[in-house]
Parts: sequence; C-alpha cells; structure tokens
Amino acid sequence: MHNDSRFLKACRREPVDATPVWLMRQAGRYMAAYRALREKYTILELIHSPELACEVTMQPIQAFDLDAAIIFADILPPLAAMGLELDFVRGEGPVLYNPVRSPADVERLQVHPPEEKLSFTLDAIRLVRQELAGRGTPLIGFSGAPFTLAAYAIEGGGSRHYAKAKQFMMAEPDAWHALMTKLSQMVGQYLLAQAHAGAQALQVFDSWVGHLSPADYRNYVMPYTRQAIEMARQADVPVIHFGTDTNGMLELLRDAGGDVIGVDWRIELDTAWQRLGDGVAIQGNLDPVALFAPWPEVEKRAQHVLDQANGRPGHIFNLGHGILPETPVDTVKRLVDFVHEYSIRQGVR
Amino acid sequence: MHNDSRFLKACRREPVDATPVWLMRQAGRYMAAYRALREKYTILELIHSPELACEVTMQPIQAFDLDAAIIFADILPPLAAMGLELDFVRGEGPVLYNPVRSPADVERLQVHPPEEKLSFTLDAIRLVRQELAGRGTPLIGFSGAPFTLAAYAIEGGGSRHYAKAKQFMMAEPDAWHALMTKLSQMVGQYLLAQAHAGAQALQVFDSWVGHLSPADYRNYVMPYTRQAIEMARQADVPVIHFGTDTNGMLELLRDAGGDVIGVDWRIELDTAWQRLGDGVAIQGNLDPVALFAPWPEVEKRAQHVLDQANGRPGHIFNLGHGILPETPVDTVKRLVDFVHEYSIRQGVR
Repeated sequence: MHNDSRFLKACRREPVDATPVWLMRQAGRYMAAYRALREKYTILELIHSPELACEVTMQPIQAFDLDAAIIFADILPPLAAMGLELDFVRGEGPVLYNPVRSPADVERLQVHPPEEKLSFTLDAIRLVRQELAGRGTPLIGFSGAPFTLAAYAIEGGGSRHYAKAKQFMMAEPDAWHALMTKLSQMVGQYLLAQAHAGAQALQVFDSWVGHLSPADYRNYVMPYTRQAIEMARQADVPVIHFGTDTNGMLELLRDAGGDVIGVDWRIELDTAWQRLGDGVAIQGNLDPVALFAPWPEVEKRAQHVLDQANGRPGHIFNLGHGILPETPVDTVKRLVDFVHEYSIRQGVR
Repeated sequence: MHNDSRFLKACRREPVDATPVWLMRQAGRYMAAYRALREKYTILELIHSPELACEVTMQPIQAFDLDAAIIFADILPPLAAMGLELDFVRGEGPVLYNPVRSPADVERLQVHPPEEKLSFTLDAIRLVRQELAGRGTPLIGFSGAPFTLAAYAIEGGGSRHYAKAKQFMMAEPDAWHALMTKLSQMVGQYLLAQAHAGAQALQVFDSWVGHLSPADYRNYVMPYTRQAIEMARQADVPVIHFGTDTNGMLELLRDAGGDVIGVDWRIELDTAWQRLGDGVAIQGNLDPVALFAPWPEVEKRAQHVLDQANGRPGHIFNLGHGILPETPVDTVKRLVDFVHEYSIRQGVR
C-alpha cells in the first residue's frame, strides 16, 4: 500500500524523514522526452491511450527523485464525459466546441459512470501502479473542481474575466445550481473511480476559483466542491484541494474539504498555515517563474518556502501552480534534490 | 478647494452624508459618447490632446451622479516619457516596441520632468478643473506604480505569467533596482505635478503587483512604491493605493503608503478593513462582472459591499478593477444612485 511513503505521511501530517516534493504538471513540455512524444501524438491521444499516458506519467519519475507521480490526464475530460466536445488547440489551450449557454444546455449534460466514459485514465492508473510497484512512489489521481469545470464549460475555453460564467451564475441561478450538481456528481464519481483503480491520493484543481468573491464562492460553489470531495473521500485516500488567488477566502476553501490545502506563492506559507490551522496539511508554494532564476536564487527561494514550513509535519513542497513549459530541466532536478537535502539538514519532523 | 466633497472627506475618514462612489475606467468604451470619439481618434490622440482628454473625462460626470472625476489618461505614459515607444494596438492593448531587456536598456531610460514630457495630461487637468468648478466634483490624477510600469516595460505589453519581468528581477537585481529607482522618481514627480496642476487626489495603480510573492514585494518593490507615494504626498492631497490579487500581502501594501487602500472583490471588504486597521480608508470592491447581472442581483451585491463597510467613515465605493467595455450603461446609472440612496438609508457616518 506504500502507506509509509513520505508523501502519504505528509498528507496525514505524520512525521517524515525529508519533506516530500512533486510538481504540478511535472509531466510536461519542459521535458525533452515529453516534447518528443508530442511530436507524434496530440494531447488527447496521449490522454486516451493508457500505455502512452503511463509512459508520460513515468517520465519525470525516471528523471527526478520525486515523491509522488500524478497520472497524466487533464482537468477537463469529465466535461467530455458529460457531452461537451473537448479539444486542445495549439497556442490556444483547451476548447469546448459546444459550450453551456442556456438551461437547456445544462439539461443535456449527462453524468455517465467514469468506468464507461473515462476508462482510459482508470486503465492508465492501473498500468502506472504496476510500473511504480518496485519504487514505492505513490500515485495521485485528479480532476478539475466543479467551479473550474463550469467556468470552462460556459466560457468554451480559457478566459480573462470569466464574464460569461459569472453572468450565467447570476442570471440563471437555477440552471447554475443544476449544472454544479451534475458536475459535483461527475467529479466525485471520477475521483472515487480513480482511487478504486489504484490512485493513492486525489487532487481537486479549482484553478480559477480565485476569480470569485468569497460570498459567491460560499453561495454558488462551496457546497458542490464539498459534495465532490466527500464522495472522493469514501475511498479513504487523502484529498488535496488546490486553488490559486484564494487568499481572500482560504478558510472557506479549507471548510469545503481536503486533507491538504494547496496554496499559491501569493501568500507566505507560514501565514497561510496559521490561517488554515493545524487540522490540514499544506502543499506549495514556490512561484513557478522562480525556476527561471540562476540556481543560487532558486535555492534561496526554495529555502524560504522550507523555512516558512519550519519542519512542521504536513508540508508537501510544490510550486504554487503548474510548471511552465520553458523551465530548465537541470533546475528541476536540483530543486527536487535540494528540498530533500535541506529539509533533512533543517530537521524536518 | 472642494475640501468638503464626500469623496475627499472619505479619503480623510471623515463623516459623510452618503458613501461616495466613482468607478475605475469610468470614462470608457461602455459609454456611447466615448465610442463615438474613439471612431475618430486613437487612444493616444485622446490622451495627447488636453481638450479631448477633458471632454472624455467629463463624459461620465455628465451622465452619472459620480462623486469624483478621474483624468482621462493611461497608466503607461510615464514609460513613454522615459524613452519607451508606447502604442495601443486594437485587440492587443498596450505595446512597448523597445522593451527593457538588459542593464544597458535601463541606463538609457531617462527621468524627464513631467512638465516637459507629460504636459498634455497636466494641461488636461487644468481644463477639467475649470469644467468642474461649478459642480464641486473633485478630480483624481493617477499613474501606474513602479512595479506595474516595470512589468510592462520588460514584457513589452500585457502578460500572463510576467515571466520576463520576474526573470529580470531575479537575474539582474542591480539593473532591477536601478530601473525601479528611476520609475519611482518618474512616478513620484508625475503624481506631484498632477497635484500641482490641480488634481485633488492621486491614485497609484499597481495593477499587476498581485503576481508577486509577499517576499518579492517586500524586497524588490515596496521601497520604490513608498518613495513614489512619499513624493506625491508632498502636495498634501490624499493618495489611493490600488492593486489586485493582493490578499496575501495586504498589510505590506498598506505599509508602502496611501491614505486609501483599493481592494478587489476577492476579499470581503470587512475582512480587508480589519486587516488594514483603522489608519486607512478603503476603496472598493464590487466585482466588475457583477454589473452584467439583472438589476435586482446588482443591487443585492452593491448592498453587500455597503453592508460590509457598515457605514464606517472612510469607505469609497468602487469596483474591484476597471469597468468592462460591454457593461450596460443603465446599470451603471442605477448603481451610482443606489450607493447614495442605500448608504443614506443605512445611516453612513
């Protein structure tokens, strides 16, 4: 069960020998091996093939001393499973060709069992677990959170102001709540299925939730995130609840659930932890752009994060958001090793 | 001197008869009169002509019962004054054709007296003050803050991650500090000159500062914002210090200076004020997207902001960022009137 891994211990706020570290989007374009595969396959082809998804998942595990693998997938396939036409367009990112713009669009969305519509990721999880069996490295499954999925579903892609999504929320509250109910079921079932397939931790990415006011989060989002997380926790694996720009409502995010709260670099880790209290572990929070600095500066910044955590049990070192495509690979390797070395010197508990 | 206006009283945290309200970018594309002028003139032509800038400044004042005017200009002309080639490209926003990418580029930038290089805005301020003389509406001058100007100068325009700006900061700290020194002088002198020309309050827009970690803000930005604000305050007019995504470092922003701190909608106004303390007034914080809602929902949200302020002296109602181009004009009119009516009913102090 690999229950004695640093990463899973830290999720449970148990003492560890060194601070565990993994990086959001650790399987990605900054690695030559990934770029080589992307010359042959689209993102969706990589996700839809369990063998390729397994291969990509393993790339950073083979290259760096990471404490967790995360299944190669995307936050958006649950939307495809519900009936939205998802594609990734070069230079534009994700696109949904039939976005949700009316109550009738919400009605058409269907919550399908993930075993039917998202089996490729569940199969990939099974393959990766076999690959990882000898190493003892735990595997993280994940999904977009209901709000972030709703935002993409309504906008039809990325957005600067999320004006369409918020407008739908304000002007069509019944349809909004119906949409969020379906999304929370889909996300909850998908996360649970990933745990049943072998994922030993689950991360909920509420990447865009920081565009909301705290009041809107409480009224229109929080109950659905909570439902999804509660369903996922039936599997008895730790849940990481991640968002960015959430420093005006960190306590609400915590109250929506999660054993671990992911915070971005816009707050001192120590301040965030004080606000969140001792009941949760914390993941973060180096600025992804910090990895573009000369190494001594990267080291100083990584050390600052570790000093903020101050060896308290329950810190998982990560970036505050996904690693950027142009990040120097050598810096990633040195960072991962430095987190272990420094936290051992520091006397992590 | 219009020192008895609601807006200036609120800046000084004195009791008012009703909560003052103005809107960032209140002279803008959501108004037909502005769009009509933009069909004939570019943004730079409007800014560079004191007569046209005066006309645009007055458009929202004539249409709505606003408690302050803000001079029509942009946050970036100080960069043009220093030697960067500024343009506004349709659909792309501001562009700087010769961005700062090396220490030599920083050396080439020159701090010119605003009376020489930015006289068009100073002249526009003089014209607007004449126009406003009969009304008693105070006029706000403004500038981009040193960091936001540096970010634009280095990126050459808007950016998603501000990777180039942060990379320059980390890799070329001496050049960064030299750049920020020049920017703080330029901004400080420009703000002071606007006050001398007749601006009765000054706003510093640090629009992108929320992309920084608190530690980076403290080390690389805060001293320069403080210098610029201190120079501006020689004129003895209130300074509004505005940023977005700043909820992880709100106290640092306050400590950098400003009689009024502008907060976005990502935090409850009451929570923000508790963190900032009684020593400052507060401006904000309705989500600009809220104005796209049906009116009863807009009213509910405006009321929520006013209830959070709870009639305490020192609240200036505003959006949490600039008004969006597609905002319905009728909603703006109703919002401005509602803020006055409700705060009178509420018994603002």
